[in-house]
This record gives sequence, structure tokens and C-alpha cells, in this order.
Amino acid sequence: MSILVVGSVAYDTVETPAGRAERVLGGSASFFAVAASFFSPVNLVGVVGRDFGEPQLAAFRGRPIDLAGLERMEGQTFHWQGRYSQDLNSRDTICTDLNVFEFFEPKIPAAYGRSELVFLGNIDPVLQRRVLEQVERPRVVACDTMNFWIKGKPQELRETLAKVHVLLINDQEAKELSGEWNLVRAARAIRAMGPRTLVVKKGEHGVLLFGEEGDCFAAPALPLETVIDPTGAGDTFAGGFMGYLASAPGLSDATLRQAVVMGSTLASFCVEAFSLDRLLTLERPEIDARYAVFEKLTRFESL
Amino acid sequence: MSILVVGSVAYDTVETPAGRAERVLGGSASFFAVAASFFSPVNLVGVVGRDFGEPQLAAFRGRPIDLAGLERMEGQTFHWQGRYSQDLNSRDTICTDLNVFEFFEPKIPAAYGRSELVFLGNIDPVLQRRVLEQVERPRVVACDTMNFWIKGKPQELRETLAKVHVLLINDQEAKELSGEWNLVRAARAIRAMGPRTLVVKKGEHGVLLFGEEGDCFAAPALPLETVIDPTGAGDTFAGGFMGYLASAPGLSDATLRQAVVMGSTLASFCVEAFSLDRLLTLERPEIDARYAVFEKLTRFESL
Repeated sequence: MSILVVGSVAYDTVETPAGRAERVLGGSASFFAVAASFFSPVNLVGVVGRDFGEPQLAAFRGRPIDLAGLERMEGQTFHWQGRYSQDLNSRDTICTDLNVFEFFEPKIPAAYGRSELVFLGNIDPVLQRRVLEQVERPRVVACDTMNFWIKGKPQELRETLAKVHVLLINDQEAKELSGEWNLVRAARAIRAMGPRTLVVKKGEHGVLLFGEEGDCFAAPALPLETVIDPTGAGDTFAGGFMGYLASAPGLSDATLRQAVVMGSTLASFCVEAFSLDRLLTLERPEIDARYAVFEKLTRFESL
Repeated sequence: MSILVVGSVAYDTVETPAGRAERVLGGSASFFAVAASFFSPVNLVGVVGRDFGEPQLAAFRGRPIDLAGLERMEGQTFHWQGRYSQDLNSRDTICTDLNVFEFFEPKIPAAYGRSELVFLGNIDPVLQRRVLEQVERPRVVACDTMNFWIKGKPQELRETLAKVHVLLINDQEAKELSGEWNLVRAARAIRAMGPRTLVVKKGEHGVLLFGEEGDCFAAPALPLETVIDPTGAGDTFAGGFMGYLASAPGLSDATLRQAVVMGSTLASFCVEAFSLDRLLTLERPEIDARYAVFEKLTRFESL
């Protein structure tokens, strides 16, 4: 089954305690697409400027990633620059040059209209909804968002959420969206807005999956000795999660849990290098082996 | 097997978003002893003042908790007052009246000298070592500490750690003790100081257990809809952890993992009420049922 992803394709300039990467490939759709492509064909919708050419596109070539939806506009590509704290748990944005992304109007190629899964990256909820209108009966619609839209376009975001099956956001965003300090209450409030599944990303503290009333699954992040750059880990998680769902027959609780672990697995590789560097050298057997590491990390015996 | 615990017995005055509790029973040894007593006899060493009498001792009565080591001194009992933030993830200390605890010199009754397990609560590392000198060949020595001793008595703490099998501290303390920002590196550095097992407590984000080189186990905290008061959760965790170890035959990796989940199970009850209130009404079948909830919370299928 194919996955449609709509989001940013960007240049990132990143400083972490491990070093600095200048104008490297980034953007939510980039991380998502490469991660998901290990499991499923991906249809990518985004926009880049004239400064984004074949060398940058090489990251997507040779993978089942369709680029017909990657628009090229006059102007410069979206550029984000940030600096991480010593413990990598917070970051300051130094500059955000939206450039062509400011005028992004997702255009869905007709061939993408039958994508069975849709991932709406973190863009204006109005645009997210317009994308959905161009896709016929997708099996799974997942969505990301951020504080900017939670505060700035609450009503529009609500309308989008009513059409979404899975919402993936971080813990702080879950609290802001719901107005609840407690994550269990937040999850109930958010599920009442539409998404029957809520995935709360907590960075190095892992992921919580909230499903049918009261059902909850907790997956840790893999404790890694060397974390080079956390940028894109959340989108990589989403790519592994949705890719796994696309490759699985149903959407059972068991499958959703496996998808969470697969997302965590992909994210654990993402942070081992700047940009998409580690994802681009990754092979499927490494992924399966690390999934097994998550099993070992979490297993304990009954009483 | 019996467990010797040395630590504080205190009055706590606590404010949380759920309410306020005035001069209620607290202290590391109190939470530890009650939690551990579900699994094993406990020998309690601590000190209280003249204001701590039979009504307060009632919490320990009717349980396998020996109070011969609970000294009663002239003066007032240790009193701590604190206020939690809205999300319960941080707290301000409003006052700390050490009172009789300032002069605490643990005296180990002769009958306690054969305790098979020892838990050294968060006290001066010099006192912790003096306690160990009074116990014959304990099977497991576990220890807690805090920033105050890590910064204030680093050399004394090192000497104590050299005699300890299991160190239980929070993530920030692990970073300060080791000088490493990364928890995996921190764990390696701390294990090199003596403790062959390190338990890193992360509050609502659960626990990481680091064992033989490279071996790691991650347990989540139970996402709870209602958290009344987190005070004592870490000591309650330690009590469940050590209690379970005392009741198990060996100290295998599998047993340590179960002990971590048992500690998390007890801690999940602790936070449901102020003081020890929930622990005092708890029955063993409830504990076993919640252990099973942790299994459900973390289980996922292989690929």
C-alpha cells in the first residue's frame, strides 16, 4: 500500500554538542519519506526552491519514493537553523527562513489520490484538510501539528482532527491541545476530538500510544551512547510507524504497538548522525536486528 | 530474608494541585519500609522526636517491620515542607527542619546485623558506610544519594559506592555523579565506581536499569489519570524493588527486571494519595494485578 506524505523539504543548519552541519537535507517530509520507504512506496508532496537540485534529490532516488508531487518554485528552499543544548533535550531556533515554503499550496498529483495511507506533516491545518479532500477514502490518516497551530488556528485544527485517525504529537503539545496537565486526561480529550489513536512522543523518554478507552502502550527510546543530532527523529518515527502500518494487514492494537516500536527503531538510527545520513546507509536487516534490541530492552517475566 | 533500611522518618507538609496535607507521615525509610514489607521482613533504623508517638507508629504496626532501631530523641521530628508545580514534575522546598535528624547517628541493633539486604537511604555517605560496617556479609547492598552529597562529599560518597551493589538515583543525579550528559556513558562511569547495577529513576518517565556491560532494561511509569502527590515515590520504588529481591532466590538479570517492575508497581500506588495513605490500604492481590497491568502496558509482538 502506498503512503502519501505532505510536509517540508528543507535545508537545516544544526549545531549540537557533537558538531555542526551546514545546509544539510532536512524537513519533515524528507525524514518521513526515507524512513517509510523501507516498508512501503511513498508519494511525496512538498516544495523546494531553485537551489534544490539533483544532488539533494539523490537522497530519495533508488527508493520507492515518488517525487512527482515535489514542486519546484522560483526562490530559495526553506532553511531552518538551530542549536541544541548540552543534554540535547532543548534547542533554540536561530533562524527560520520559510522562503518558498511560505507559499506552499500542496498540489496532489492525480495518481496520488488513491494513496491508502496519508501522513499530514506539520503544516497549516487548512492545508492539511485540503490535502485530505484530494484523497479517496484513505485507510489511515495520520497527522502531526505544533504549538503554532494549536494556539494560532485552534478551530481549523479541530476541523482537521475530526478527519484524522492517528494524531502524533509531543507531550507538551498534547497538554496544550487538550488544556489538561495529565497525559491520560489529555489523551481522552484529544480522542474525543476525532483521532481514535493518539501517539505522544516524549523524545528520549519514548512514546505513549493511547487507543480504545483506557488502552495504553508505552515504548522507551533506545538509550544510545552516542547521539549526534536529534533533528528529524519525530518525523522519522512517524515514517517508521506509518511504513509499518502500510506493510501490515490490519490496524489492530497489536499492529499499532509493533508500529510504535518500528517508529522508535527508525528514530534510534536517525539520531546517530546529522541530517538523514544514517538513514541513507541503513539496510533492512539492521532495522530488524534493532527491533529485536527493543524487545530485549523491554522484556520482563510474569510473577 | 530480612531487609535493613536506614533513612529518614519525617513529617511532611505537602502542597500539590490536588490539595494540601499538613504534617503527615513521610521520610525515605517510612515509604521504603511499608513498600518492602509486602514481600519481606524489614528492620527500620531511623530517628524521631518526642512529637512522634504511637498514632504515627500505627502505620508500621501489623506489618513485618521491626522498630527496635527507630530511635526516639529529645526534640522535634524532621519536618519537610514542599510545593509541587502544576504538572508535578518539579517542586520547591519551602522549609526543611532537620530537627533530631541533624544529629542522626544510626545505631544498628545487634539483631539487625544479619540482615541479608541493606538499603542505605539518602543520608551522609559517612553514616552510610558506618551502617555497612555493622552488618555481616549482606547479600545485596543498595544505596540512594542526592546532589547535596555528590557535590558536598564526593570522596566520601566514592568510598561508600565502592561497597554498594545497587545504586538507585535519579537521572539528573546520575549525570552529576558521573560528569556525563549521556545516560549510557554515565551508567558506565558509575558502574566503574563500584555498583554493578545502576537504577536510574526518571519519575513519570519510568526507570532505566543498567547491568552487566551493555545490558539495559527500560520500564515505564504507569500513566495515571489521577496523581495526588509524588512525594515518596522514589523510596516506595526502592522498597518494592528491594522487597522483591529479598523474596526471590537469586540476583539474575531476570529477577532484577522483575524487581524494577515491582518497584514501579508500588510507586504507582504511592502517588495516588498523600503520604503513605494508599500504601497503607494496599493488599497483595492489588499489587499482583497492577504488575500485570505493567505487562499489558509494555508488551508487543516480534516481527
